[in-house]
Amino acid sequence: MANNKRIAFFISDGTGITAGSLGGLLSHFPETTFEHIRIPFTDTLSKIDDAQKRIANSKMINGLRPVVIMSIGNKDHRSELKEVDAYYIDLFDIFIEPLGKELKEDPLTRPGVSHSIDGLNYGNRMEAINFALGHDDGMTHTGLNQAQVILIGVSRCGKTPTSIYLAMQFGIKAANYPLIPEDFERGTLPPILDGYLDKIFGLTIKPERLHSLRSERRPDSLYASLSNCREEIGLAEELMKRLRIPNTDSTSRSVEELSAIIIQKIKG
Amino acid sequence: MANNKRIAFFISDGTGITAGSLGGLLSHFPETTFEHIRIPFTDTLSKIDDAQKRIANSKMINGLRPVVIMSIGNKDHRSELKEVDAYYIDLFDIFIEPLGKELKEDPLTRPGVSHSIDGLNYGNRMEAINFALGHDDGMTHTGLNQAQVILIGVSRCGKTPTSIYLAMQFGIKAANYPLIPEDFERGTLPPILDGYLDKIFGLTIKPERLHSLRSERRPDSLYASLSNCREEIGLAEELMKRLRIPNTDSTSRSVEELSAIIIQKIKG
Repeated sequence: MANNKRIAFFISDGTGITAGSLGGLLSHFPETTFEHIRIPFTDTLSKIDDAQKRIANSKMINGLRPVVIMSIGNKDHRSELKEVDAYYIDLFDIFIEPLGKELKEDPLTRPGVSHSIDGLNYGNRMEAINFALGHDDGMTHTGLNQAQVILIGVSRCGKTPTSIYLAMQFGIKAANYPLIPEDFERGTLPPILDGYLDKIFGLTIKPERLHSLRSERRPDSLYASLSNCREEIGLAEELMKRLRIPNTDSTSRSVEELSAIIIQKIKG
Repeated sequence: MANNKRIAFFISDGTGITAGSLGGLLSHFPETTFEHIRIPFTDTLSKIDDAQKRIANSKMINGLRPVVIMSIGNKDHRSELKEVDAYYIDLFDIFIEPLGKELKEDPLTRPGVSHSIDGLNYGNRMEAINFALGHDDGMTHTGLNQAQVILIGVSRCGKTPTSIYLAMQFGIKAANYPLIPEDFERGTLPPILDGYLDKIFGLTIKPERLHSLRSERRPDSLYASLSNCREEIGLAEELMKRLRIPNTDSTSRSVEELSAIIIQKIKG
């Protein structure tokens, strides 16, 4: 088994978000430990020189050549940067320029094209974040008709971060409502959700995990006790089953995974 | 000038987040209008077949071949998918497998490696989101010593979405405090921030933009009036200048751009 440590640079003339998001792909190599270094706004020759020095220096210290994932529009800057020894993954070389040939269009090369306020559905995303924050944890009942999805589940099962991720990443307006003991006694959803059944998606969770999450917030409480967690989850799952509410288990899923599942459901 | 419309598929055996994040690169081609279609969890031959049908169908309807950005670990699935005519950008082909040669390590090929709960600093990111939500808009004073950055600025200048983005994307704990008329009368920061000057970063904004944002929330109010916006911003900028608080203008910057600027500042 290899036992490697590598420095991974993410160098961009803009925010570095696109280059950085490829960092996730490095997790395909679990035997290598990566130290991530981001260098955004590298848009002048003097900043290119600074980046070169950091690359050369890290190679000297680490022994192995660094991995450099780069998104830089200016061709001269690009070739200047690559003068120093490293393993380069140049998004313009491998992605943008070949795609331009297919599209028969020359790519824009100025910095900051990918994550400007003009692109990527920006206004909708900010509106959706305001919506998610205003409709977190059942805090308001107005405007639910604008929700694209309403997440339900017991307290601390992951509704809030999932709602925010859906908004931030996709501009999807997500409200969320907690299922509480009163709902289980009544055996129905919170009455305010009447008429929205087709937008509702449930999150559930394993009792042991919920116990641990709730114990962080209120240690040694009845609320956090394993027996109470088990009972609430059982009742919530029974309710969702009876009302045929689509749902998924958040225990070992990231907000990225939960969001992808929810989007498939609401679009399908 | 070309006038093209293309379908862009993002096909993945996992969440499709990594493939989808490359969607930002398509904004380098402003003359082409892209319709984005995400197909996550494509991890069986029958789902590959479904995806193929959608690709073939969209080519028939649109006339031009679709762009397919794909992240699929299974080699057989990959070559099966590519049997249908399209412009393929295969992240394993152009990125992961060549990198594996450099690292002398075979990549993991099972689905969902990049965005699982085990990777990408997941626990820290969730903790940071809870922190940002709990320290939004000066709502609590406890735990400020844990903040890595404290954003200040007048109401509606972009502090909340920026705090949440810093948390969600980078696991950075960001609190935020509004600057309000009482602060300007006193001529100092909110007293609770004493001792945290080195963590403070200011956001400012153009009066016309603030007027428009505030008018959405409270139309025709004194709060939203252009003259009031101009005055508050002037006083806030004066305060930041006097206290030498680093700051940036949020008017035409996305949360991605603001976050990248803030990170450079707090790490520099």
